[in-house]
Amino acid sequence: MLRGIKEYSKIKIKTVDGEVFEGVVMPKTKYNREDSIIIKLKSGYNMAFRLKDISKIERKGDLKNKILKQVSHKKEEKNLKYKVLLLSTGGTIASKVEYETGGVIASLDPQDLINLFPTWYKNDVRIIAKVIMQEMSENLTPKDWNYMITKVIEEYQRCQEVDGIIIGHGTDTMHYSSAALSFKLSSLIPVPIVLVGSQRSSDRPSADSIFNIIAALEFIKAYSGKGVFVCMHGGTSDEIFHVHYGTRVRKMHTSRRDAFKSINFKPKSVIRIDLEKKKIEIKFDERDYKENDKYKEKIKISCYSSDVALIKYYPGMKAEDLEYFLKNKKGVIIEGTGLGHINVRESEGLLEIIKKYSSEKFIGMTSQTIYGSVHPYVYKNLRLIKEAGVVFLKDMVPEVAYVKLSLAVNMFKTKEEIEKFMLTPIFFEIDERESYW
Amino acid sequence: MLRGIKEYSKIKIKTVDGEVFEGVVMPKTKYNREDSIIIKLKSGYNMAFRLKDISKIERKGDLKNKILKQVSHKKEEKNLKYKVLLLSTGGTIASKVEYETGGVIASLDPQDLINLFPTWYKNDVRIIAKVIMQEMSENLTPKDWNYMITKVIEEYQRCQEVDGIIIGHGTDTMHYSSAALSFKLSSLIPVPIVLVGSQRSSDRPSADSIFNIIAALEFIKAYSGKGVFVCMHGGTSDEIFHVHYGTRVRKMHTSRRDAFKSINFKPKSVIRIDLEKKKIEIKFDERDYKENDKYKEKIKISCYSSDVALIKYYPGMKAEDLEYFLKNKKGVIIEGTGLGHINVRESEGLLEIIKKYSSEKFIGMTSQTIYGSVHPYVYKNLRLIKEAGVVFLKDMVPEVAYVKLSLAVNMFKTKEEIEKFMLTPIFFEIDERESYW
Repeated sequence: MLRGIKEYSKIKIKTVDGEVFEGVVMPKTKYNREDSIIIKLKSGYNMAFRLKDISKIERKGDLKNKILKQVSHKKEEKNLKYKVLLLSTGGTIASKVEYETGGVIASLDPQDLINLFPTWYKNDVRIIAKVIMQEMSENLTPKDWNYMITKVIEEYQRCQEVDGIIIGHGTDTMHYSSAALSFKLSSLIPVPIVLVGSQRSSDRPSADSIFNIIAALEFIKAYSGKGVFVCMHGGTSDEIFHVHYGTRVRKMHTSRRDAFKSINFKPKSVIRIDLEKKKIEIKFDERDYKENDKYKEKIKISCYSSDVALIKYYPGMKAEDLEYFLKNKKGVIIEGTGLGHINVRESEGLLEIIKKYSSEKFIGMTSQTIYGSVHPYVYKNLRLIKEAGVVFLKDMVPEVAYVKLSLAVNMFKTKEEIEKFMLTPIFFEIDERESYW
Repeated sequence: MLRGIKEYSKIKIKTVDGEVFEGVVMPKTKYNREDSIIIKLKSGYNMAFRLKDISKIERKGDLKNKILKQVSHKKEEKNLKYKVLLLSTGGTIASKVEYETGGVIASLDPQDLINLFPTWYKNDVRIIAKVIMQEMSENLTPKDWNYMITKVIEEYQRCQEVDGIIIGHGTDTMHYSSAALSFKLSSLIPVPIVLVGSQRSSDRPSADSIFNIIAALEFIKAYSGKGVFVCMHGGTSDEIFHVHYGTRVRKMHTSRRDAFKSINFKPKSVIRIDLEKKKIEIKFDERDYKENDKYKEKIKISCYSSDVALIKYYPGMKAEDLEYFLKNKKGVIIEGTGLGHINVRESEGLLEIIKKYSSEKFIGMTSQTIYGSVHPYVYKNLRLIKEAGVVFLKDMVPEVAYVKLSLAVNMFKTKEEIEKFMLTPIFFEIDERESYW
């Protein structure tokens, strides 16, 4: 059945169930099953088929214009300039064959990775690769953030001399994790930490996710500061990459490669990988990270809690539903409407519930508009919400506020201390220069 | 104290509490208190002050370069071509003095409105204005949607011959309301219905919100179809307006005038009001609304329920929290991560809870990325979620899915009927042309 069909052949498959798929045959690795074939669909997604499930294969030609050929190149260790730790936690980027199994396979042999670099990319980096977790990011919890942080510190301490750390991560909750790492690690680890993911594989065979890693490497080579960042495609072209501040980024599309966007902030860095001219350009936003000495020690010894909640308000939300969370959690973040509203009508009783709990528990307000800043003074209803004890969290991204609060409730005993910490910028999550009003 | 200070004077105010504000004095209407002064701050927001609360007023000059002068023009009824119903529900746009009271004052005298039109705008429309509700949109609930819909039908029937209906609405939940109106009224009312709001007033005195109304008027004059739409600023300039499909729009910024964005869709119409050349251009997306005969009668007799919930998933969400909603609501919409994920680890127990309730209750999946489409087949974990009984709602906006479900649970008794309805496009909320995979 496979006669004449080779890597990068364009084929049309009919399954025994009668479904038809067209795509390009992808190269197999040692992790693939012998009796399977992987094709890249037009959408860019890979699908794997067991041969026994296929009733017919038709060859439609071969893929032309392959810009990047996979050639392995070897470097002598004595010439290496930079040393980078590459830690894998799971997700699409961690594996070449994840589509096939639905799970994650550790394929992080550094040589495997270097083999994937395009030939013209003169890699002067020594990569030390290690799998520290194997989990799709949708399954991560605050406990996993704590584990991940411990492992990153451990691996960093094991090989002190690195210039930076790249962390491969599933994209679904990468922005939650990057916030968690930002608060904990920015002051603890003196080199940049860059999370990279693979939103989806490129239409150009195998050339996609590896470029996120190359961009992250270039960022680490060029950036002398520290902190936690996320590096992903910055547009629909193959050439632009954005390095986002770890507390200023959000997945804004289910499937596009440039799904990750900086929210209310410029990216830390814009990187252009010019495939034609074979060169790399990098630009920086010049904001500097200032370590917060007051909280440094406390942050170091604290970990993330699973006892807080992120609640999106919607028209018709009942007071009892809000009370369920306020009663059972150590604190909550509300995603209100607009500038930070919920229904304040007396008959609805939401404000009453807030008043009942706000003296003992932290209730933070963010906005479901995602972009912009909440503000407690523009409308009278906002003032009522503030007076009931809700703390308005300025331009903090809701998910980041949730992550920060889940650390704060383990750092402090009183609501006042939590409030003070929540309103103090730790790693760019609140813009002090901001003045909307 | 007010000597030399008149409309459009630039002033600096010091309150008795010592706060200082700078801005431009706004014209007063009959609804303003005699002993008050309203100033427009640099941010574009208006603030009202009682004279007794002011300790000092300093005059800094007068505002120049007023592009639009307010001149009232009268038209003879016999020359009027179009007849439009303008219904106010509350919010910033409904009132010239809402900032003062924090509430809404009915200032919808049609002549008041026409007085606000710029002189060059030759208005060939007869406006019949009516206040049908007086509520800030953050306080609206599904009950209010039902009331609003009843009133719109009532007012439309009272004056049959109108070419369109404009509804003034607060912006916070305007996209929830526009979805609610879309499902109910698209098949019931044979003329276009356009919701307009005022995200914030313009830096140019009084010239802002009125342009949303002018753009809505022009849309109604030019559009021969029906359906429910939202018309708002489409950019940071004063000139561009977007008319969004009522189920394809979302407030995406807390304060910008162009906060409303079409999601996964082109706007229905782009309108350019050229202030220099004094002309109006209008462009259309050519999608046509197809009435769904199957559900028309059932929709007509059904109303929105407050017994469904919109739940945003976050890392660390507990099975018991999900169960609280599944137990107490008639159905839920989940905002999952990425392509529609929640944590599927057995130890977390979320899937178990879903399996427990999914045979009797509708559980819909959308994405918290806002943009893009959920899909149950790309990863193995997605399949597990689908197999547990969750219905993937394609590219439906989460808020719209919530609104639709709150109608669906009152339309049908069985989960199967609800599922079928949820996956059937009623008014553009699911893109049938879409093929992500």
